[in-house]
Amino acid sequence: MKRIAIDAMGGENAPQAIIEAVLRAKKELKDTQFILFGNEEEIKKYLKEEDSQIKLVNTTEVIADDEEPVKAIRRKKDSSMVRAAQAVKEGQADAILSLGNTGALLACGIFIIGRIKGVNRPGLMPTMPSKKGDQGFNIIDVGANAQSKPEYLVQWAEMANFYAKKIRNVKNPKVALLNNGAEYDKGDALHQEAYKLLKETDLNFIGNIEGNEIMTGKADVIVTDGFTGNAALKSIEGTASVILGMLKDALLNNGTKAKLGALLAKPALKALKSRFDTARYGGAVLLGVNAPVVKTHGRSDQRPIYYTLVQIDKMLDQNLIDLLKKQFSQE
Amino acid sequence: MKRIAIDAMGGENAPQAIIEAVLRAKKELKDTQFILFGNEEEIKKYLKEEDSQIKLVNTTEVIADDEEPVKAIRRKKDSSMVRAAQAVKEGQADAILSLGNTGALLACGIFIIGRIKGVNRPGLMPTMPSKKGDQGFNIIDVGANAQSKPEYLVQWAEMANFYAKKIRNVKNPKVALLNNGAEYDKGDALHQEAYKLLKETDLNFIGNIEGNEIMTGKADVIVTDGFTGNAALKSIEGTASVILGMLKDALLNNGTKAKLGALLAKPALKALKSRFDTARYGGAVLLGVNAPVVKTHGRSDQRPIYYTLVQIDKMLDQNLIDLLKKQFSQE
Repeated sequence: MKRIAIDAMGGENAPQAIIEAVLRAKKELKDTQFILFGNEEEIKKYLKEEDSQIKLVNTTEVIADDEEPVKAIRRKKDSSMVRAAQAVKEGQADAILSLGNTGALLACGIFIIGRIKGVNRPGLMPTMPSKKGDQGFNIIDVGANAQSKPEYLVQWAEMANFYAKKIRNVKNPKVALLNNGAEYDKGDALHQEAYKLLKETDLNFIGNIEGNEIMTGKADVIVTDGFTGNAALKSIEGTASVILGMLKDALLNNGTKAKLGALLAKPALKALKSRFDTARYGGAVLLGVNAPVVKTHGRSDQRPIYYTLVQIDKMLDQNLIDLLKKQFSQE
Repeated sequence: MKRIAIDAMGGENAPQAIIEAVLRAKKELKDTQFILFGNEEEIKKYLKEEDSQIKLVNTTEVIADDEEPVKAIRRKKDSSMVRAAQAVKEGQADAILSLGNTGALLACGIFIIGRIKGVNRPGLMPTMPSKKGDQGFNIIDVGANAQSKPEYLVQWAEMANFYAKKIRNVKNPKVALLNNGAEYDKGDALHQEAYKLLKETDLNFIGNIEGNEIMTGKADVIVTDGFTGNAALKSIEGTASVILGMLKDALLNNGTKAKLGALLAKPALKALKSRFDTARYGGAVLLGVNAPVVKTHGRSDQRPIYYTLVQIDKMLDQNLIDLLKKQFSQE
């Protein structure tokens, strides 16, 4: 039986949304156990009973979003997040999911669960929707590392390539480097060197892409240094949120005709929204540690959490971590 | 009389759109002369006659978008862009506008027109629309420099602050650093040091902002290293283009009801589009060289070019370059 350790106290809608997602997932994922770490009393408001698939572990502390990550995981040993990570470390669970403090979860992954031997630095990798529709793409690293080296980027590309093949079923994923121009000699020293090294791998490396091409679906895997990746990802999220907000505003605050128009166009607008539905893509994975460590957005309701559980389940089914371990032990 | 040197051959709609913009601008900017550099025969198709405000200088070469910038400006001495830059250098014009190869224009600015004494590295700065509406914001550097140092960022912030005050009439502009977190110790060594230095200036420095806050209008001036700025700006452009494209698609390809809805909502959607109308914000300025060097998007039609001419005219009216020279000679 696969076992997923879940930080039931992280995120704005905890623990309710998390428990709803677990109750939904357990019906489909019959061979998976969900171990909820959190305040027993709180959790029991939404969870009527434990069973063979749902286990509850009482914890007394919660790491807040604004706490300094490394300090927080050192001090709050009985927090839902640290206890969940400890369970993975001690072999009582196979993966961890949290909606809480991203930095703290990364620290749990790196310092408690530990790096895969041969991996220099783990990288954070979401799956994002592209213009092309269902396929989406992976981008790594989006902020686990403020300072990056060319070799890190190559390993991130290799891990994300593995993920795209095994979990997203992409055949021969197209891998691109996020850079400030198309030509091989573009960018600073870091990106010029990363280009050279990527060119030498067996990856299906299609060269540089620029920020405006991220969402086009041109690449299945985009590799970037953690600082730039963080800025690019957040720029995308911010722009999408501003435009969709302004669209709503424009339709609702421009008189009756606009409102009627919005009403008639509602199914179309809904279709647009569903193509931008990041929920279906699950959470961001910290690749390069000894177990699936997955973060879902703190504002998530039940849906994205459910999809993240399905995603983690697939990572366990496919033995992704063992494959990565094998890959990097050979290097 | 102010004199603007114009590369009439750059961009997809050259020279027609450029000449249309000049003909529109000259009616309002009575004290300004527009010197068009380009193929005489081509230009004369759209320009019926020269007058005291419009002068034509025949050139025989054009720098293509895919040419290596520094090589191109060295080899194509009789290109419309290089000749326009030379005119500025030799005091026959006060500013240059081009829609052509951005790298080549930056090279013209730096190598032909020259850096302002005391400025380490010129930075490229567009004005962008924000959620807040008309005000917009400036972001610098968006790609003139692949490799940045903390001191460069401070100078860019100072120059953009000047620009926001003098040209955009912002009182006490709020200046922010693009970083991967809100706290002062976020980011890599470059951004940590830049934060420290910015804190010590007289600027109204409001601290770090993240990529998702760029478009919110929280800051009037955003300073960033050229590599990250380039990725962030292009991510924003790409996302806006993908979403607006998908919106159009959703409204037109979801049956009659959606189409009718779109028709009714048209004024509202137009209002949305106009709030995102980057044309009114003019071109991107290379700040830190001895004259206004301004780039307008290569796909521009007449409107953005017209607004860029108005923008350049204001920079000349306000003696922006002299003020910057004074500022940096004192440092």
